[in-house]
Amino acid sequence: MARIGFVGLGNMGGPMLLNLLKAGHQVSAFDLVESALARAKQAGASVAESAANTAKDAEFFISMLPASRHVEGLYLTPDAEGKTLLDRVPKSTVVIDCSTISPQSARKVAEAAHARGIAMLDAPVSGGTAGAEKGTLTFIVGGDANVLERGRPILEKMGANIFHAGAQGAGQVAKICNNMLLAIHMTGTAEALALGVANGLDPGVLSEIMKRSSGGNWSLNVYNPYPGVMDGVPASRGYSGGFLVDLMIKDLGLAMDAADGTDMAIPMGALARNLYRLLKKQENAGALDFSSIQKLYTKDV
Amino acid sequence: MARIGFVGLGNMGGPMLLNLLKAGHQVSAFDLVESALARAKQAGASVAESAANTAKDAEFFISMLPASRHVEGLYLTPDAEGKTLLDRVPKSTVVIDCSTISPQSARKVAEAAHARGIAMLDAPVSGGTAGAEKGTLTFIVGGDANVLERGRPILEKMGANIFHAGAQGAGQVAKICNNMLLAIHMTGTAEALALGVANGLDPGVLSEIMKRSSGGNWSLNVYNPYPGVMDGVPASRGYSGGFLVDLMIKDLGLAMDAADGTDMAIPMGALARNLYRLLKKQENAGALDFSSIQKLYTKDV
Amino acid sequence: MARIGFVGLGNMGGPMLLNLLKAGHQVSAFDLVESALARAKQAGASVAESAANTAKDAEFFISMLPASRHVEGLYLTPDAEGKTLLDRVPKSTVVIDCSTISPQSARKVAEAAHARGIAMLDAPVSGGTAGAEKGTLTFIVGGDANVLERGRPILEKMGANIFHAGAQGAGQVAKICNNMLLAIHMTGTAEALALGVANGLDPGVLSEIMKRSSGGNWSLNVYNPYPGVMDGVPASRGYSGGFLVDLMIKDLGLAMDAADGTDMAIPMGALARNLYRLLKKQENAGALDFSSIQKLYTKDV
Amino acid sequence: MARIGFVGLGNMGGPMLLNLLKAGHQVSAFDLVESALARAKQAGASVAESAANTAKDAEFFISMLPASRHVEGLYLTPDAEGKTLLDRVPKSTVVIDCSTISPQSARKVAEAAHARGIAMLDAPVSGGTAGAEKGTLTFIVGGDANVLERGRPILEKMGANIFHAGAQGAGQVAKICNNMLLAIHMTGTAEALALGVANGLDPGVLSEIMKRSSGGNWSLNVYNPYPGVMDGVPASRGYSGGFLVDLMIKDLGLAMDAADGTDMAIPMGALARNLYRLLKKQENAGALDFSSIQKLYTKDV
Repeated sequence: MARIGFVGLGNMGGPMLLNLLKAGHQVSAFDLVESALARAKQAGASVAESAANTAKDAEFFISMLPASRHVEGLYLTPDAEGKTLLDRVPKSTVVIDCSTISPQSARKVAEAAHARGIAMLDAPVSGGTAGAEKGTLTFIVGGDANVLERGRPILEKMGANIFHAGAQGAGQVAKICNNMLLAIHMTGTAEALALGVANGLDPGVLSEIMKRSSGGNWSLNVYNPYPGVMDGVPASRGYSGGFLVDLMIKDLGLAMDAADGTDMAIPMGALARNLYRLLKKQENAGALDFSSIQKLYTKDV
Repeated sequence: MARIGFVGLGNMGGPMLLNLLKAGHQVSAFDLVESALARAKQAGASVAESAANTAKDAEFFISMLPASRHVEGLYLTPDAEGKTLLDRVPKSTVVIDCSTISPQSARKVAEAAHARGIAMLDAPVSGGTAGAEKGTLTFIVGGDANVLERGRPILEKMGANIFHAGAQGAGQVAKICNNMLLAIHMTGTAEALALGVANGLDPGVLSEIMKRSSGGNWSLNVYNPYPGVMDGVPASRGYSGGFLVDLMIKDLGLAMDAADGTDMAIPMGALARNLYRLLKKQENAGALDFSSIQKLYTKDV
Repeated sequence: MARIGFVGLGNMGGPMLLNLLKAGHQVSAFDLVESALARAKQAGASVAESAANTAKDAEFFISMLPASRHVEGLYLTPDAEGKTLLDRVPKSTVVIDCSTISPQSARKVAEAAHARGIAMLDAPVSGGTAGAEKGTLTFIVGGDANVLERGRPILEKMGANIFHAGAQGAGQVAKICNNMLLAIHMTGTAEALALGVANGLDPGVLSEIMKRSSGGNWSLNVYNPYPGVMDGVPASRGYSGGFLVDLMIKDLGLAMDAADGTDMAIPMGALARNLYRLLKKQENAGALDFSSIQKLYTKDV
Repeated sequence: MARIGFVGLGNMGGPMLLNLLKAGHQVSAFDLVESALARAKQAGASVAESAANTAKDAEFFISMLPASRHVEGLYLTPDAEGKTLLDRVPKSTVVIDCSTISPQSARKVAEAAHARGIAMLDAPVSGGTAGAEKGTLTFIVGGDANVLERGRPILEKMGANIFHAGAQGAGQVAKICNNMLLAIHMTGTAEALALGVANGLDPGVLSEIMKRSSGGNWSLNVYNPYPGVMDGVPASRGYSGGFLVDLMIKDLGLAMDAADGTDMAIPMGALARNLYRLLKKQENAGALDFSSIQKLYTKDV
C-alpha cells in the first residue's frame, strides 16, 4: 500500500485512479472539476483542496492532463507564496506525468524536478479510455531506469505493458512517433481498402489478404476502418467513440513540433494530418473516431 | 505428376520452375534468354522452341513475365499462322499467369481465354526471390473458385499461402492494394524512426515499442529499414538485394492506373511513390532495396 | 484562301472551325456527331463522309480530338483497304493536331507522318472555349520551325499567341507542364486564401496584396477562386462553366505519364491531382470549374 | 524630420535604418551586437544604451527582430524596475514592428500597447535585403487605418509599396499567406521545369511559354529557379544569396501555426515545407537561396 497524489481526473485519469484504489492504495486526488472530484471521493479517494495538497506526504505523485501548458502550469507556476508544486513535493517522491505533451515540455519539467532532487518520469499512455478502465494501458516511459523500477509496481496497477523508451522526454518522443505511424498506416489502410473496393474487391476479403501479407498492420489487425469488416470497432458503429479525430490532429501536432525542433522532414505524417483536417471539414468529423478517415476516400460508408 | 508448360524463367520464374521439378512434375519450359533455358534444362525441364510448344499437351500452363505488355503479347499476339497461344492451349488446361500486371490486362487476357473455353487464373505473388527459392511464396488469386481448386496442388509446390481474392483480375487488384499499403507503412516507418532518432531515441528501442503498440506493421515485424536494428534484412547489408526501389515504383504505377480507372484519390500512395522517385534521384537508389527509403530521411545511414 | 480538312467539331473544334470559315478559308469537315456536322454545314463548311475524305486535296489538315487513343485511331488505324489517313493525305499537306494528348502519342503519329514525307505539328491549345470562340487561343507548338511558319497563317486565324516549344511532341510537353503548374498555383492560391480568411482577412484585400507581391500568379490575376473577389469568373457564378475539374484531372494524368516515362518526381502535381479527386468525391465537383478547389478548403463557399 | 527609436540592426534592420537617416530623420538605435551599433553610429544615428532608451522622446518606434520570442521579449518583459518597454514609450508614439512573427504574438503585443493607450502597427516586409538597401521594400500592415496614415511617411522612406491588410495581426497573416503561396509556386515551377527538361524541352523556352500562359507566376517572372534562364538571380550564381531555405522553412512554420490556430488544412504548404526539409538534408542547402529547390528535382543543376 502506497500513498499517492493524483491530479487530473478526466476520461483517462478518472478510471486510472479507480484502478489504484482497487489495488488498495491510498490516494489523495485533485481536479478543477467538482463532479470528477465527487466521483473520486465516492470511490474511496481522499479529496484535496489543491494540487499541492495532494503532494504532501505522497510517495508517488501522478498527473494526467490535456496538454503541455497544463503540465507546465501544474508543476512550474508559483503559488501565492512563490512556491511551485515541485517545491512542495517531498524529495523522496517519484513524480510520474502520464499526459501526452511535447518532449520539450516534458524535459523542462523533469529538469526542474531534478534540480530539486526529485525523481521524475514522463509516462504517456496508449490504449484509450477502454484501456484505462480495464487497467490494460501501455505506458511508454522516459527517465532513469532505476526510477522506472520504483514506479513500476504502481504503473502495473493501471497498465499491462510498460516500455522504457530512454531518458527524460523519451516517453513522449516514442509515443509521438508511434501515433504518427499509426495515423499513416490507418490512412493508408483506408486508402488501400477504398481502392480495392472501387476495383471490385470485397473489403473483408482484401483486409484478410493484406493482414496476412506485407501490408499487415495494427489497423487491419484490430481496428479495421471499413464498416462491416470487423465487429466491435468504431467503423461498425458509425465511427462513434474510440480515439477522436481531434485528438489525432493534436497528437500529429506534437509530431510537427518534434520535427521542427530537429529540422526533420515528415511528409507522410504532415499529409496524414492535413487529410484529417480535410476530413474534419468535409465530414464534420472532429468528434468521430480516427478510423473515419475512410469517409474521406469512400464518401458513402 | 502433371504436365506443365512454363514461360518466363527470370529471377522469380526460374526458382519457381525448380520447385515444380523437385515435386516431380514434368515441365516444358521456354524463355527468350538462352542461359535461363540452359539452367532449366540442366535441372530436368524439357526445353521448347517456342512458348506455344510448351503449351501442347499441358495440363497446367504457367507464365511469369515482367509487365502487362509481355503478358498480352504472350497470350494474344497471333503467330505466323494467325493463331494466338490461347488458340494452341488444350481446352482442358488450367492457365495461370503469375505476373504482376494491371487488372485491366489480366481481365482482357482471361476473357480471351474464357471465350475459347479455357480456364484461367491471375495469381500474382509476393515473397520475393527468397520466397520463390524456398517455395514459400504467397499467391493472390483471381478467378473462379473451382478453377483455383484445380490449380491449388500446383501452386502449393511453389508457395505457402494461397488467397482467393475474387473474380478474374481480383488477384492483381489485391496485390496492387497490398503493395501500395506496404510502400506507405514502410515510408511511414522510416519517417517515424528518423524522427525518433533525431529526438534522441535508440532506433531498436523505438522499433520494439512501436511494433508492440498501435504503430505495429509488417515493416517493423520482419523488414526494419533502420540499419543495425534487425539481422538479415537489407538495411543491415547496405540495402542490397531484396525488393528493389525500381520495382516498388513500378508496382505503385499499377496503383496509379487502378486509381485512374476508377477515379479514386490515393494521396498517400502517390506521395510515397514520389518520395521513392526523389530517393532514386538523390541517392541513386533504383537498384537498392525499397527499405532504403530510410536514406531519404536520414542521409547518413 | 486555303483548302483545309478539319476533324473533331466539339466544344473546342466547332468554334475553331467557324473562325477559319470567317477568315474565308474553304473547309471540309468531319465528326462522328451528326448535329456537330450539321452546324458546320450551316456555317459554310463542306461536309465529308469520312475523315479520310476531308484530307483529299487539303493544303492543311487539322484535328481536335479528346484523347491519345482517338488521335492514334484517326491517323494510324487502317481502313477497309488497309490504308491509314496518313496514307491518304497529300504529301504537300501540313497536318496539325490540336488535341491535348501524351507526348508519346504525339511523337508516334508525327513519326508515322514523317515516314510518309508529310509535315506534321502538335499544337495543343490553351484558352478554353471562350478563347476558341473569340479566336484568342494560345497554340503551343511542337515540330519543325519551318513547318510552323507554313502553318502560322492558319493558326493565327484561331489564336492570338503562338509559341514554338521545340521538336515534335514538345508542344504537348509544354502544355502538360504549364497545366500542372496551373493546378499547383490554383490549389495553392485557394489554400492561401482559405488560411487568410480563417485568420480574419478579407479575401479581396488578401488577393490584392498577394497579386502584387511574391505570391503573384495567373490565378490571382485573372481567375480568382474565392467567390465575390472578381467579376466574371467561375467563382462568382457558382463555379459553373470554365475549365472542368474532370479535364484538369485528365491533364494531370498526362503529367503523371510524362513523369513515368522519364522517372521524374512530381510530388506537388501528384498531390494537386489527388486533392482534385477528393474534391470531386466530396463535393460532386467533376463538372464544376477547376477553381472550385476552393470548396475543398472552405466548405461553405 | 522625426525622432525615431530603432531596435534590431541586422541584415534587414541595418539598411532600413540607413534609409531613415538619409531621409533626414533623427534616429536613436539599439542592438545587442556591438558592430551593428558601431555602423549605425558611423552613419549618423545616436546610439542608446538600451532598447528602452531609444524609446524616450520617440515619435516613432520601430523594431526589426528575428522571431516572436524576441518581439515579445522586447515589448513585454519587465526590466529591473518592473517596467516593460511599452511602459516607457510616450503615449503619442506610433510603434511599428516590422518583424515577421506569428499573428498571435503580433496581436498580444498590440493589445498590450493599446491597453496603455499606445498606437501600434504590425508591418512585416517583403523584398529581402536588396529591397531594404534600395528602400523598395513592401510593407504589409495590420492595425488601425488612421495609425497607418500617421506611420506612412516614415514607411515610405524604407519601402515602395504599403498595403493595409486589416486590423492588428493582419499584416502578419497576409505575409504568411503570401509566403506560403510563394513556396508553393516556386516548388511547382521547379517541378514543372524539371519535368519539361527531362522530356526534352529547353528550360528557357518552357519558362517563356509558361510565363505568358496560365502557369504564369512571380517565380517565372523575376526569380527563375533553373540555372541559366535568367541573369542576376540566385539560380545563376549557384543559388547563393537571396532568401535562404532556412528562412523559408521558418516562414512556412508560421503558416503551420496559423493553420493550427484555426484548424485549417494546408496540404500543399505542408508538402512544400517538407520538400524544403528534404532539400536541406539531401543537398545541405539551408544557407542556399530558396529557388535551390530545383536541385531536389534535377540533382545535377
